[in-house]
Amino acid sequence: MASQKVLIYGGKGALGSVLVNYFKSKNWWVASLDLVQNEEAHANITIKNVASWTEQEQEIITAVEETLKGEKLDAILCVAGGWAGGNAASKDLVKNCDLMWKQSVWSSVLAAEIASKHLKDGGLLQLTGAQPALNGTAGMLGYGMAKAAVHQFVKGLGSANSGLPAKSTALAILPVTLDTPNNRKWMANADFTSWTTLEYVADLLHQWSTGQNRPDSGSLVQLVTKDSKTEQIIC
Amino acid sequence: MASQKVLIYGGKGALGSVLVNYFKSKNWWVASLDLVQNEEAHANITIKNVASWTEQEQEIITAVEETLKGEKLDAILCVAGGWAGGNAASKDLVKNCDLMWKQSVWSSVLAAEIASKHLKDGGLLQLTGAQPALNGTAGMLGYGMAKAAVHQFVKGLGSANSGLPAKSTALAILPVTLDTPNNRKWMANADFTSWTTLEYVADLLHQWSTGQNRPDSGSLVQLVTKDSKTEQIIC
Repeated sequence: MASQKVLIYGGKGALGSVLVNYFKSKNWWVASLDLVQNEEAHANITIKNVASWTEQEQEIITAVEETLKGEKLDAILCVAGGWAGGNAASKDLVKNCDLMWKQSVWSSVLAAEIASKHLKDGGLLQLTGAQPALNGTAGMLGYGMAKAAVHQFVKGLGSANSGLPAKSTALAILPVTLDTPNNRKWMANADFTSWTTLEYVADLLHQWSTGQNRPDSGSLVQLVTKDSKTEQIIC
Repeated sequence: MASQKVLIYGGKGALGSVLVNYFKSKNWWVASLDLVQNEEAHANITIKNVASWTEQEQEIITAVEETLKGEKLDAILCVAGGWAGGNAASKDLVKNCDLMWKQSVWSSVLAAEIASKHLKDGGLLQLTGAQPALNGTAGMLGYGMAKAAVHQFVKGLGSANSGLPAKSTALAILPVTLDTPNNRKWMANADFTSWTTLEYVADLLHQWSTGQNRPDSGSLVQLVTKDSKTEQIIC
């Protein structure tokens, strides 16, 4: 194994795939955890159980232990997630709230559990929130609610006695819109200069993983892009 | 049916039972929705399905329609919930996060769905948050996360185009500790003069239901009790 090790939770998604390649290019050992394999990663943990949270927990925790064989991680980056709209009158309200919870919160909580067991002292646990969820989101109730849960979770993880390793950092990035192929496809007429590039996020997370410019534990870091320049606003 | 109608979601719990009796004493027609019947209520909807959210949705929506027979509700008060502790290293982290989500968020979302279909224009939808979840809650991660989700949900429901009936109000009460028999049992040595009485909450919710002193839609109303006096702090 290389000297520095990262687990990318959601490592086959648009952002996750960029992270896998970026960290590899910096000579990190990279494990990907996702529903499907990422062949670029040094190791893969593929999730089969998506119906029961406690059964998925057992599956993942066992697989992570077998993969790490007692080695510790320098960073756990959780970029799993998804999006669905709908207000209180939407016929898919419950279905979409359920899906958003599973995609954003199951992954975040399991990433924290992995961190409590396998992150190095002083390591980084990064989760993914959403800038719009800092306020009400009438047209995407399930999405906003799940992301708000992640935000409060990070604040708890960043407090004393949260169960994470000593001197580790738990924080979340709160993008507005990421510049992914799917977003380009579905919002083809949007102003792309207000979207945050995946390369920017990869570079930022690599810096934080090495300890450079890392915000305090418990931080929610909004990524606000204007004229193709991204600013970090910490709250 | 009496002229004014309320649905108490969680109507057999400690607070819910007090609400059923209080609204009855004010000559309201009262329906209770819970896992078990409340014989004091004029009508009962008892939930059987606790494993699947979408199946529980179908069960509840059908039963509410059959109970109301086209009549509208003046208020929907959701006081269902529960409590569990645990930090990221707790062996029951996932199990308790799952339970907290089901108890606080399934109920809140279903109450909003009922409101979108059966609440009068200008009616009241009240949900239940928690004052500690305004900040991080390292020792009760699942509880804080679920309550933070309810808070953000209320902000969305209180915004334009949320899918609720015209001029209706969605808000949440955020208690610190309610003076219930169970809390007296488990925290027997606590300072009870900092706990909020169920009678105070019942009187407050009755006032709001009749339109008296009702906060704006989207409000989070902290209930902070000191020397047996309760103050409302709106955020």
